[in-house]
Amino acid sequence: MESFTVGLGSRSYDIVLGIGLLDQPRAFEGVRDAALAVVVTNTTVAPLYAAELVQCLGRRHGRIHTIRLPDGESHKTWPTLNLVFDELLSLGADRKTILYALGGGVIGDITGFAAACYMRGIDFVQVPTTLLAQVDSSVGGKTGINHPRGKNMIGAFHQPLRVIADLDTLRTLPEREYRAGLAEVIKYGPIADAPFLGWIESSIERLLARDVEALRHAVRRSCEIKAAVVGQDEREAGLRAILNFGHTFAHAIEAGLGFGEWLHGEAVACGMAMAADLSAAVGLLPASDADRIVRLIDRAGLPVRGPALGAGRYLQLMRVDKKAEGGAIRFVLIDRLGHAVVRGVDDAQVEAVLEARCD
Amino acid sequence: MESFTVGLGSRSYDIVLGIGLLDQPRAFEGVRDAALAVVVTNTTVAPLYAAELVQCLGRRHGRIHTIRLPDGESHKTWPTLNLVFDELLSLGADRKTILYALGGGVIGDITGFAAACYMRGIDFVQVPTTLLAQVDSSVGGKTGINHPRGKNMIGAFHQPLRVIADLDTLRTLPEREYRAGLAEVIKYGPIADAPFLGWIESSIERLLARDVEALRHAVRRSCEIKAAVVGQDEREAGLRAILNFGHTFAHAIEAGLGFGEWLHGEAVACGMAMAADLSAAVGLLPASDADRIVRLIDRAGLPVRGPALGAGRYLQLMRVDKKAEGGAIRFVLIDRLGHAVVRGVDDAQVEAVLEARCD
Repeated sequence: MESFTVGLGSRSYDIVLGIGLLDQPRAFEGVRDAALAVVVTNTTVAPLYAAELVQCLGRRHGRIHTIRLPDGESHKTWPTLNLVFDELLSLGADRKTILYALGGGVIGDITGFAAACYMRGIDFVQVPTTLLAQVDSSVGGKTGINHPRGKNMIGAFHQPLRVIADLDTLRTLPEREYRAGLAEVIKYGPIADAPFLGWIESSIERLLARDVEALRHAVRRSCEIKAAVVGQDEREAGLRAILNFGHTFAHAIEAGLGFGEWLHGEAVACGMAMAADLSAAVGLLPASDADRIVRLIDRAGLPVRGPALGAGRYLQLMRVDKKAEGGAIRFVLIDRLGHAVVRGVDDAQVEAVLEARCD
Repeated sequence: MESFTVGLGSRSYDIVLGIGLLDQPRAFEGVRDAALAVVVTNTTVAPLYAAELVQCLGRRHGRIHTIRLPDGESHKTWPTLNLVFDELLSLGADRKTILYALGGGVIGDITGFAAACYMRGIDFVQVPTTLLAQVDSSVGGKTGINHPRGKNMIGAFHQPLRVIADLDTLRTLPEREYRAGLAEVIKYGPIADAPFLGWIESSIERLLARDVEALRHAVRRSCEIKAAVVGQDEREAGLRAILNFGHTFAHAIEAGLGFGEWLHGEAVACGMAMAADLSAAVGLLPASDADRIVRLIDRAGLPVRGPALGAGRYLQLMRVDKKAEGGAIRFVLIDRLGHAVVRGVDDAQVEAVLEARCD
């Protein structure tokens, strides 16, 4: 078990990383007691880990209740969020109640947003069980739900009390979801750490085989980078936007196909290929470095070609991206491996990249 | 025009108070420019003041759009909030867009919560047009919507950029709403300022006649007290709870009758009479002081007798109050005029007060 801190003043918290943490009450030590704790999970994860988590929490809380939500990005909506509110009110949850988000990114985002809004804010703990959630979405306090017109359009910044990433839970992850999580691991190389990019390239086979030591390093380094960025810019006033590398294109893919059609990580993978191309097209990055990124995504078994939505539709969807200002899309681009910038690009250049990268 | 500051560090802001402010662009000076501003108001207030506000904002913003919501507490719900999100997305609102809440407490709460959640948080300005909103709900950053099972159960703390309270707008307020606002003015006496209580007693006729100088003092002193309390305890960890004097009973009345049946201020008035009685019943306050509070509420033309929901139903509804902990209701009580405390009370004593105070 190892831990490191996301430094945010009075809202600082620890990320605890290790194997078999759901059997180690020690991983939860320091999380305050509560008369009522509510584990929010989904119908897929509940039979695998809910009983284990509840048992591990033991006598820490007076009462522990479990809420099972439907599984999948298509359920990251107001009606699902409202199921949580209904149940919290039925249970008599109060301002001291603690929520535990047990699951992937969707569960973490919904549970975190429920915690942000219930009685104007209660505490929650992230217990991510997917690679994507462990390396990305559980850290940093971004919470929210989708709106039919855009991903994560309704949400809040609400930091967890702790993130508990048990690598054991990754063993049950379906192959497709596991690979989708690798997209977010790969992301940290180009935007922040060229040596880490090299390490991923040389370790991709071990990562695909879910070698636990390779995984431990990948999750640790990803969380370290994310924690450092979030610690400098919690509310995305500047630097934090680099974590959205590939995400502007990705959100267009997800919204254009309908949420849940592609997994978020798959869309991010393809979006990073597009953003790498765009970085090269505007002359920021040598084409060979862009190719290196695309090749690694491809080796991870992730899509590097986008769905044929049409360049016009991509642009339309990207204009409602949260980074956009006055309808001008702002892209995260790589200006050298290990470093990202945020800037606008002429529509024509974006269209050319999209036409080359889409089926 | 006068102004004073709600001191909250980097989130500090000014309350600007005066006559004819909606005709004085100077009142808005210092609010930053934005490519898009959206005035959120309701169908009652829009014909009265929307054009005036839009004109006053003048060239400060590139584009100004107005959203008209249905009027009333019964519309402080998710579907109404979602109308705002739909329209913001249709307009291409981005993170730099500024919302203006033009209306009473419901508009301020919905608009503030929309601002808190849209793209995880955008700026908003409060332009309260009711007495209740000017002296209470527009100051302090509490935003939210009702859930069928409880008032303001879903919400956020989100401070405005500025509060602009134009006393002129109170002239068009229907008598019933105006009196409801007086309930929140009266509140500040017992909880924080005995001399102010005496001033209200001696000025109640002038206040009921909407004498502008009396109103100016009432709004100023109310805002000063609220700003001081919020500045010490933004997120209601302790002190701020005293501002909920009467509100625990009031929320039960509102939820028990259905939101909108009684105006919020009417329910607060009656709730304060109940809380004054309860303060006396538990021996904190002389009965004569409790009577003084009740008499003033009555003189303001506000209800001092509650609807006959039955004591059991009151208790059931109060157990989901946000101040409750583990099902134990916590009441704001007066232990001497000008000072409040928060504590639990035996159900039997609460029941006795309810039975005496209800029809």
